[in-house]
Amino acid sequence: MTINKGSQAFPRTEYLRRLAEVKNEMRRREIDVLFVTSPSNITYLTGHTAATAYVPQGLVVSLDEEEPTFFLRQMDAPAAIRQTFLARSNVIGYSEDLVGNPDMDGYDKVIEFLHERGLATRGVGLEPGFLTLKQFGRGQDKFKVKLPKARIVDCSKAIDRIRMVKSDLEMVLMRESAAIADAAIVRAAEVIRPGVREADAAAEIVGTLIRGVNGKPGTAISPICFCASPYTGTAHVRWGEDEFRDGSQINLEWGGVRYGYTAAIMRTFIIGAPSDRLRRIHEAEVAGLEAALNTVRPGATCGDIASAFNRTMAKMGFKKESRCGYPIGIDWTEPTASLKEGDITELKPNMTFHLMLGNWVDEDFGYVISETFRVTESGVEVLTNTPRKIFEI
Amino acid sequence: MTINKGSQAFPRTEYLRRLAEVKNEMRRREIDVLFVTSPSNITYLTGHTAATAYVPQGLVVSLDEEEPTFFLRQMDAPAAIRQTFLARSNVIGYSEDLVGNPDMDGYDKVIEFLHERGLATRGVGLEPGFLTLKQFGRGQDKFKVKLPKARIVDCSKAIDRIRMVKSDLEMVLMRESAAIADAAIVRAAEVIRPGVREADAAAEIVGTLIRGVNGKPGTAISPICFCASPYTGTAHVRWGEDEFRDGSQINLEWGGVRYGYTAAIMRTFIIGAPSDRLRRIHEAEVAGLEAALNTVRPGATCGDIASAFNRTMAKMGFKKESRCGYPIGIDWTEPTASLKEGDITELKPNMTFHLMLGNWVDEDFGYVISETFRVTESGVEVLTNTPRKIFEI
Repeated sequence: MTINKGSQAFPRTEYLRRLAEVKNEMRRREIDVLFVTSPSNITYLTGHTAATAYVPQGLVVSLDEEEPTFFLRQMDAPAAIRQTFLARSNVIGYSEDLVGNPDMDGYDKVIEFLHERGLATRGVGLEPGFLTLKQFGRGQDKFKVKLPKARIVDCSKAIDRIRMVKSDLEMVLMRESAAIADAAIVRAAEVIRPGVREADAAAEIVGTLIRGVNGKPGTAISPICFCASPYTGTAHVRWGEDEFRDGSQINLEWGGVRYGYTAAIMRTFIIGAPSDRLRRIHEAEVAGLEAALNTVRPGATCGDIASAFNRTMAKMGFKKESRCGYPIGIDWTEPTASLKEGDITELKPNMTFHLMLGNWVDEDFGYVISETFRVTESGVEVLTNTPRKIFEI
Repeated sequence: MTINKGSQAFPRTEYLRRLAEVKNEMRRREIDVLFVTSPSNITYLTGHTAATAYVPQGLVVSLDEEEPTFFLRQMDAPAAIRQTFLARSNVIGYSEDLVGNPDMDGYDKVIEFLHERGLATRGVGLEPGFLTLKQFGRGQDKFKVKLPKARIVDCSKAIDRIRMVKSDLEMVLMRESAAIADAAIVRAAEVIRPGVREADAAAEIVGTLIRGVNGKPGTAISPICFCASPYTGTAHVRWGEDEFRDGSQINLEWGGVRYGYTAAIMRTFIIGAPSDRLRRIHEAEVAGLEAALNTVRPGATCGDIASAFNRTMAKMGFKKESRCGYPIGIDWTEPTASLKEGDITELKPNMTFHLMLGNWVDEDFGYVISETFRVTESGVEVLTNTPRKIFEI
């Protein structure tokens, strides 16, 4: 028995548009085939969001074919039939014998396919950063050894650069994700109380990230950062085993996710009145955030945004060591640019960024605020919509 | 200001015991230093569970030093001070200038350190599968080029093999995680009802995975598989946008997590009465599961477990294409062995496995059941403790 496609985030025409851009880039690089192994790029080109990259898996994009061919383990093929726009015949499940097999793996099937299709002697693009998988190692070496006549071309970040500029259809999902991220901040303000365990608050917040808003559930759980006193100087840590107390400060970060598209937000909470130190850094950061947003327009650079933030912060006596953010979209961080002084990446309409102003000042003190924004034709649209305040409980 | 250590899952002596085993293996391989980049192996040797591996990061284990030295970006150093047993001086935060920098990254700092300590001309072990990071690529090449006088040794899976055998202290966490996984099945049986959105049920289930049981919260959210009719033939997919209906079958899989240690479980739910087909495969799989567990004892092999399962299934007219499971511990799948015919890995006391009997028979039909178990001195201890039934709602 066969299954029908599940809910599709985009029509087929949207994927063909993206593929046309990728094929143009392939022609520019004089390659005939591109083997896509970045999970985010697979999502971009097909809609696949199931668990991936834990065994060899990837998408063969060929100039000779309209649709890519997706290779994945047999067990995962039905998920690809369900989730992607691809024709059933373009989803190829390889035998389960190749999983946990020291002699051969799924990449061997892809290489065999390239030989069969006469692509083994042509220009073959790879994404080397995603060919060395945790359980298997050495994917890149295998392609070099088993395709001795191919001209192997490093296509790292080629698709990532294309997907920096979102379509209007992608922006619909980004806005839905931003609304989910906002709703979880509202929930946090309801459940963070003295005597409540951090884990119990986290359970409620994550519940909101999954339930979503406006009839649109979250489709995945983003990473969560949840750093309460005395650990507000730590970043990228989840909830702890303790309870909140009077005076606890809590730094929060998460994203809403719809079909892989993430919009992120950070806010700082305090149980009781903020200290002078906290209030002063908050004022500086909000001023910096507004200065940064005011620089956003097509033609400005990523570096310009960071400079505006840093100048404002410096005027108010503060400094942030880390970059001010990065492009955001599928799977949170896009690895193409940084909101960092000196980054000359030019802003274009429908690029989206996480203006990430988390500032871990001392080992025991940090403050966080952020917004996810879109570059418009003439300026900026802030997608997240939560008061820029310290949330006082 | 400095912070104190946060809750520690293990005493310092436990980490020194693990390090002693790793150093013995290093001597066996005639290397003086091992650069550990697998996130699970970093957790194993230090207790670090914060977000990791999204920028270059790793642990230098040297025969000359009792404790490893942990390199990570400045922003993440306080998390390592908080979470690991390491002395503050052994946590080295590298400058934020190296993040998103095309010319230099955190690995350059590690290489510099090896030169300073006189280790650059010695045997240097690497974990190549974890040196090529999604945003940075080519970590392995950098070590080869910048340490031209070193003897580079591939130490893939060396630590993973050591951590296959758990200590009694690790088993305490594995049991706590198993209890959380069980509790989420109980919650699923409470919330899965006709007319309920899949996302709303998922929110409740994940809430239980975070709240935990017996005063022990989950410390992270494991991957969740949640495949409802008509998609019970898909594996590794999260909840959808639909509602459950009368007759819906739902295949569930998740893990409880304590300080990185995961115990996993799968069960099949049905709203209404199971079909004959579902009942027959369930009976075969439970018989196979029991046959598999009955073979578990020190000295038996991973392959013996799979053979027992497969023989029983065959007798009852069924077959499972994929392997029957894998070692489980830190971060779910350990990449060292498979419960698969022909795998000659010998069982030892305190090895733990996920006996994963998910069986995706057809594109539109699958059945799942699993247990997490420990090898004892004389047989098996099943850590998960949930009825081996089809959950009829």
